[in-house]
Amino acid sequence: MKREDVLMEALPYIQKFYGKTIVIKLGGHAMVDQSILETVIRDAVLLRYVGMKVVLVHGGGPEITAKMEAMGKEPKFVGGLRITDAETLEIAQMVLVGKINDGIVSLIANCGTRAVGISGNDGNLLIARKMEPQRVKVGEVEQEVDLGQVGEIEEVDPEVLHCLLAQNYIPVVAPIAIDRQGRSLNINADTAAAEIAIALGAFKLVNLTDVDGVMDADRTTVYHRLALTEAEAMIGAGVIAGGMIPKLEGCMKAVRNGVASAHVVNGNREHNLLLELFTDQGVGTMLTL
Amino acid sequence: MKREDVLMEALPYIQKFYGKTIVIKLGGHAMVDQSILETVIRDAVLLRYVGMKVVLVHGGGPEITAKMEAMGKEPKFVGGLRITDAETLEIAQMVLVGKINDGIVSLIANCGTRAVGISGNDGNLLIARKMEPQRVKVGEVEQEVDLGQVGEIEEVDPEVLHCLLAQNYIPVVAPIAIDRQGRSLNINADTAAAEIAIALGAFKLVNLTDVDGVMDADRTTVYHRLALTEAEAMIGAGVIAGGMIPKLEGCMKAVRNGVASAHVVNGNREHNLLLELFTDQGVGTMLTL
Amino acid sequence: MKREDVLMEALPYIQKFYGKTIVIKLGGHAMVDQSILETVIRDAVLLRYVGMKVVLVHGGGPEITAKMEAMGKEPKFVGGLRITDAETLEIAQMVLVGKINDGIVSLIANCGTRAVGISGNDGNLLIARKMEPQRVKVGEVEQEVDLGQVGEIEEVDPEVLHCLLAQNYIPVVAPIAIDRQGRSLNINADTAAAEIAIALGAFKLVNLTDVDGVMDADRTTVYHRLALTEAEAMIGAGVIAGGMIPKLEGCMKAVRNGVASAHVVNGNREHNLLLELFTDQGVGTMLTL
Amino acid sequence: MKREDVLMEALPYIQKFYGKTIVIKLGGHAMVDQSILETVIRDAVLLRYVGMKVVLVHGGGPEITAKMEAMGKEPKFVGGLRITDAETLEIAQMVLVGKINDGIVSLIANCGTRAVGISGNDGNLLIARKMEPQRVKVGEVEQEVDLGQVGEIEEVDPEVLHCLLAQNYIPVVAPIAIDRQGRSLNINADTAAAEIAIALGAFKLVNLTDVDGVMDADRTTVYHRLALTEAEAMIGAGVIAGGMIPKLEGCMKAVRNGVASAHVVNGNREHNLLLELFTDQGVGTMLTL
Amino acid sequence: MKREDVLMEALPYIQKFYGKTIVIKLGGHAMVDQSILETVIRDAVLLRYVGMKVVLVHGGGPEITAKMEAMGKEPKFVGGLRITDAETLEIAQMVLVGKINDGIVSLIANCGTRAVGISGNDGNLLIARKMEPQRVKVGEVEQEVDLGQVGEIEEVDPEVLHCLLAQNYIPVVAPIAIDRQGRSLNINADTAAAEIAIALGAFKLVNLTDVDGVMDADRTTVYHRLALTEAEAMIGAGVIAGGMIPKLEGCMKAVRNGVASAHVVNGNREHNLLLELFTDQGVGTMLTL
Amino acid sequence: MKREDVLMEALPYIQKFYGKTIVIKLGGHAMVDQSILETVIRDAVLLRYVGMKVVLVHGGGPEITAKMEAMGKEPKFVGGLRITDAETLEIAQMVLVGKINDGIVSLIANCGTRAVGISGNDGNLLIARKMEPQRVKVGEVEQEVDLGQVGEIEEVDPEVLHCLLAQNYIPVVAPIAIDRQGRSLNINADTAAAEIAIALGAFKLVNLTDVDGVMDADRTTVYHRLALTEAEAMIGAGVIAGGMIPKLEGCMKAVRNGVASAHVVNGNREHNLLLELFTDQGVGTMLTL
Repeated sequence: MKREDVLMEALPYIQKFYGKTIVIKLGGHAMVDQSILETVIRDAVLLRYVGMKVVLVHGGGPEITAKMEAMGKEPKFVGGLRITDAETLEIAQMVLVGKINDGIVSLIANCGTRAVGISGNDGNLLIARKMEPQRVKVGEVEQEVDLGQVGEIEEVDPEVLHCLLAQNYIPVVAPIAIDRQGRSLNINADTAAAEIAIALGAFKLVNLTDVDGVMDADRTTVYHRLALTEAEAMIGAGVIAGGMIPKLEGCMKAVRNGVASAHVVNGNREHNLLLELFTDQGVGTMLTL
Repeated sequence: MKREDVLMEALPYIQKFYGKTIVIKLGGHAMVDQSILETVIRDAVLLRYVGMKVVLVHGGGPEITAKMEAMGKEPKFVGGLRITDAETLEIAQMVLVGKINDGIVSLIANCGTRAVGISGNDGNLLIARKMEPQRVKVGEVEQEVDLGQVGEIEEVDPEVLHCLLAQNYIPVVAPIAIDRQGRSLNINADTAAAEIAIALGAFKLVNLTDVDGVMDADRTTVYHRLALTEAEAMIGAGVIAGGMIPKLEGCMKAVRNGVASAHVVNGNREHNLLLELFTDQGVGTMLTL
Repeated sequence: MKREDVLMEALPYIQKFYGKTIVIKLGGHAMVDQSILETVIRDAVLLRYVGMKVVLVHGGGPEITAKMEAMGKEPKFVGGLRITDAETLEIAQMVLVGKINDGIVSLIANCGTRAVGISGNDGNLLIARKMEPQRVKVGEVEQEVDLGQVGEIEEVDPEVLHCLLAQNYIPVVAPIAIDRQGRSLNINADTAAAEIAIALGAFKLVNLTDVDGVMDADRTTVYHRLALTEAEAMIGAGVIAGGMIPKLEGCMKAVRNGVASAHVVNGNREHNLLLELFTDQGVGTMLTL
Repeated sequence: MKREDVLMEALPYIQKFYGKTIVIKLGGHAMVDQSILETVIRDAVLLRYVGMKVVLVHGGGPEITAKMEAMGKEPKFVGGLRITDAETLEIAQMVLVGKINDGIVSLIANCGTRAVGISGNDGNLLIARKMEPQRVKVGEVEQEVDLGQVGEIEEVDPEVLHCLLAQNYIPVVAPIAIDRQGRSLNINADTAAAEIAIALGAFKLVNLTDVDGVMDADRTTVYHRLALTEAEAMIGAGVIAGGMIPKLEGCMKAVRNGVASAHVVNGNREHNLLLELFTDQGVGTMLTL
Repeated sequence: MKREDVLMEALPYIQKFYGKTIVIKLGGHAMVDQSILETVIRDAVLLRYVGMKVVLVHGGGPEITAKMEAMGKEPKFVGGLRITDAETLEIAQMVLVGKINDGIVSLIANCGTRAVGISGNDGNLLIARKMEPQRVKVGEVEQEVDLGQVGEIEEVDPEVLHCLLAQNYIPVVAPIAIDRQGRSLNINADTAAAEIAIALGAFKLVNLTDVDGVMDADRTTVYHRLALTEAEAMIGAGVIAGGMIPKLEGCMKAVRNGVASAHVVNGNREHNLLLELFTDQGVGTMLTL
Repeated sequence: MKREDVLMEALPYIQKFYGKTIVIKLGGHAMVDQSILETVIRDAVLLRYVGMKVVLVHGGGPEITAKMEAMGKEPKFVGGLRITDAETLEIAQMVLVGKINDGIVSLIANCGTRAVGISGNDGNLLIARKMEPQRVKVGEVEQEVDLGQVGEIEEVDPEVLHCLLAQNYIPVVAPIAIDRQGRSLNINADTAAAEIAIALGAFKLVNLTDVDGVMDADRTTVYHRLALTEAEAMIGAGVIAGGMIPKLEGCMKAVRNGVASAHVVNGNREHNLLLELFTDQGVGTMLTL
């Protein structure tokens, strides 16, 4: 591969993406391995450098669990779902907003760019309502479980993001929402990223995760391009199954609602973000209408 | 007092303050008594309603101490000063940013206005350096004490505040700063409020605290107006002494650097903020050049 | 009544009215008693101070009559209506534009604000046509009377007002209109104020007059709030009658055509204008849709 | 003269004057002969049509005298100067503002353009102070005479004119000023026009009067171009004398203070205004630096 | 004819045309007689001076023929139509763009105004397709002739003209177009001028040619005003015939497509352009809807 | 070389160059070999795609000579310098403007971007004066030679370029200038490019030529970075000599007058333009202050 060929291939993408909005969900190892996080941040800053409007949304489940244990508060799960009582929410909020979010902002500052960390209650960015009790299988028995202070997004007011993007900040969003009575609620970060991408009319949503993308049945090949209908068919046929389904759901909703493309990319490999965006073939799975 | 007289008195102030920036330091009981905090927030939102650009800066010492104790981490003080080791800083940051700051943002949202909570590392708002070791009297002996992760503000970049104020958000600032290597530092909230007021070219700085203002020697009368030189003379003559001196220092620095007036007001009495601003006599102490 | 309560009550109104347009008809004693006029002007200027866009419209019947008598010209009335021959019109125009209007402008200048006095022919503000002869009862006989140089407003071009308001002037309007041939016509000031409020899309029209507002049948209580349909019903039922009907007509037309509220307020009592606008109950009658 | 030659001659002037400000003092017969006034107004409107910003300033001495006489008030003169007592001022103001000014506005409206009539107290356009008593020869004796409510201009605030010109109105200014206490004063219209031209940074001042311009000693030839120094020399040498001196003074002051050229033109001859501006030679006297 | 009458007649036209766009086709002797060209250019610059947005479109047939002969390349015509082979096109392009166009730009620069010369391939101004073979009578026989590199305009992108006009340049357009494959094509200048006038939403199209306008049957009188329907009827009736038909076609298409008026004017008489535009009667034929 | 490394290396340059102006002189084989020209144009368009403001300046000596010969006009040289008589100038202008310039514009259009071809007389871009007679060695004898219609640039008015760049056109400039009398002059394209870069305050000037850059004495290594003072010293020491000196002169003048860097790059190798700009080492010589 000659340098000039890489450049000839990349430059048209760089032009095409200039001024476009990209929402990146940081997940997987990036949330626990500082050196992976740093590489991902550096790539995201490069996207900012070539003119993209970058919004980062992060999760933080493992860190919340770790901090709870450190504080002697036992995490409770029913049928695999975390129960978020008031104390758990307070810890989650402190970890997500006061630790992880601030940490990402500092990393971006270290790359020479300015970020502003917010959560969903800032500027009423994410309005949610408490999630209805869920039917969950516990052992053999299915029961209704109240997940506690967990929310479903009802409305997104992206104005604070527009305001920060217009001033060339990288907004970093923690997955906390506010309900109509001003109470905080914990929310799923994948969903938050997708809803934000939709509300911003983003050009791309990238879900940085621990897998290489959507694979064929024998898990040897990544599908680099997937139309929404193909993805739906593959889910129906059981080719896409298990943990990949929730990863894809946000992407599919985004594409259905005006986001031009949504990507599932393995964030653990260095510079995958750049390769996915600036090469013809990409490295993960790109979902389009 | 007739209604029309109150109005005739207040309207010219309202006109004069329209579009002006006011930085309010929330301290004292407001930080621990939720109902006082709510009243203060409501008054601050009314200021926003009549056209002022409001910036809130909050502290949180007592809550940090409480949370440390809850987590089994013993707060350390030498000669009255808190020693902030790495663990203490992490807890302070989580409490200030993830709990208090978010809580204030939610209260403001409940008043029908939008706020955005940030800390000093967002948009490089507050750049600090680690504070030099301080000479402190411990018992009879003076010794040099390294306070740990505590910072002195070196530079303020108010752009993120301008950006948020221009979009009619109320920025709520937690007293955390960032050093040139991207590390967080704990900072004094009074100082942060004063530095922010200076950097914004604010019209007013209001320090909401637990005392009624600067008093005469026998502590019966509040000085409602004080010129900077008078304050300096009273400090020199020992009339102003003790805990009032640090409360006044930020105010004096602000007035010396272009803030038109700085106020020390008892935030524990309802609506003192409004009475200080919109009546001829005021209720606390107003310091001017 | 505590000061803080007055402020808490007033501030939301002040916010709500900021930047809104208010048209005030000056009538009653304000037109003949200089000290009442000065108080009213001072209140109007305070409205300007808290961000309202204020337009004043004045009458001047008594002064015109006085000047005619001083000039040895006998005012003629048929069935209570003034007959405006060419000479009367010239005197009216000189008194309204050259004396009363200029006097109000000077009073406003004395309050530290700038006003510009215009009449309806400036910038083609008020285009009128000569009024059709009216059927009037003279003694027992009804006859048709040509009122002379009196006009009905056909069209309002508010651009000159927008231009002056945008530059923070208070426009002061004399009730003279121009017909399509460039001839001046005398017009009713109440009607002029209502038409101007409609053309400006004003938020409020206030008719400052000599009575306290719309009262109940035994004239002891003022109706502080009245819906348009209620007012119509009360006129139909004869509860509102006599001199109040013409005072209400302009207000009703304004409210029917997009002005959010129209007020009948006694301008002879000090500061009634402020109390009507900035207290929950008000002092006069507020008409809304 | 062929049409195309007139056009070739005029077009460059039209280009040069586009967007430029011209202040025209209307005086002489135009103030008493309606048909002359109409012609002059029509020409002024044509100037507006080809892009000039036109400001009209008018006098009205003869009409004031006539109205005083009609009202049985005897005009008083000492040594040829009018004494303006309070009653005289009231009449002057009514005639100038309420009659002449409104009349000119109506004439302009008839030409299809919009004008706004103001006097010097509107928007604090002309701030004056009462003129000092003047030394006047009465018969053989020189005595000090207090002229009454007559003012000298101290300050011009042209903002209201800029505001109206920006909206394409032709401002028409009556020679009334306001003093610092808000009292009206009568002022000289020639002086008012010159001061307004200076404050606007006008390109041209045109004094439309009853004579053909500055003439040579035997009054047969008009000097079409005159440098300021030439005019000064001619006054020194007595070539320019008598009634022409006061006519020239405002022009000379204007040219000294940045107005590019000032013209004395006979307004009684039809279209002299156009011929003076759009032909190489002109018809009156053009004074330049 | 008095000067003032010419001015009174012309000024309203000057006002009316201010800021309007006029497309002028330079043809006839102006393309071969340098002194005529200079006069026409000077008139066009005067139009620019009085605020019109002027676009010039030129032809150049005779010069192309002359240059071809000088280069020993024989011009080929079939049935009166020029056959444009590749070599002919190259010569045409060099003459039109490199010689005539540049020459006009220089003449305009000499008049003190700035021009920019472009051809239809600049900014994709004129997109054309190769013209279909034409049926032509050669002697007695009609045959199909391929005219070679000659184009029909398919699309006009006037943005480059808007851009230049907004900066006060006079664009000068050579009649070369570009096809969708980026090849140059020769086009008819009359058609190009009409299409450009339509695309610009021009106010006027002026075809400067060698005849005085549309004449009556015995060729003694020019029709100064002609409605589109009249022109169509006259063509139908054979009153307009011969060489005038192609001259009128562009004008008729322009008027049909939103250009307010199109003129056929004899460009060989001095200043006809000015007389046509700025006198009531005009000198050529004005076609309107 | 891995793709991601090329991207990591290139992206910061792309960011740095965004919105910057680059002037590219097209010379060497690009002017005679269509396929090289096409590659160069494609690269230049890619620069436009990633946000650079691209200006192209071209020469055309060999084509002029060829065309002269085709037209039977013998090119004349004295001491190696071309003598440009009137006929030569006409041919040069037709070739440069009517053929080469238009051809480049068409190539750019084919790449999907819009260009506008101009020469130095458009918008008075390049004002020149006739060059003084030069002392030239002819054989053994030095004599003074008048080069004819050849100009030296006196003044650059870049407004037409700003205007076109602001609308995202690529301006293509032919090396023709205009003198103060409106006459065309032939100018050196290298000099024109340098003067244009200076007048635009360009960020970069790139001279695409036939050599790889400045080389060391034994011509094996290219100096990739050269400070201005180094280049001057190398010329003084004779290391840089011969044909490289005129190539460097424009670059040195540009760098001396505010252009951040000037490059000599071999335009005959594919994509050298991209490699020079977007790799750390580059391929040619970059001259900086």
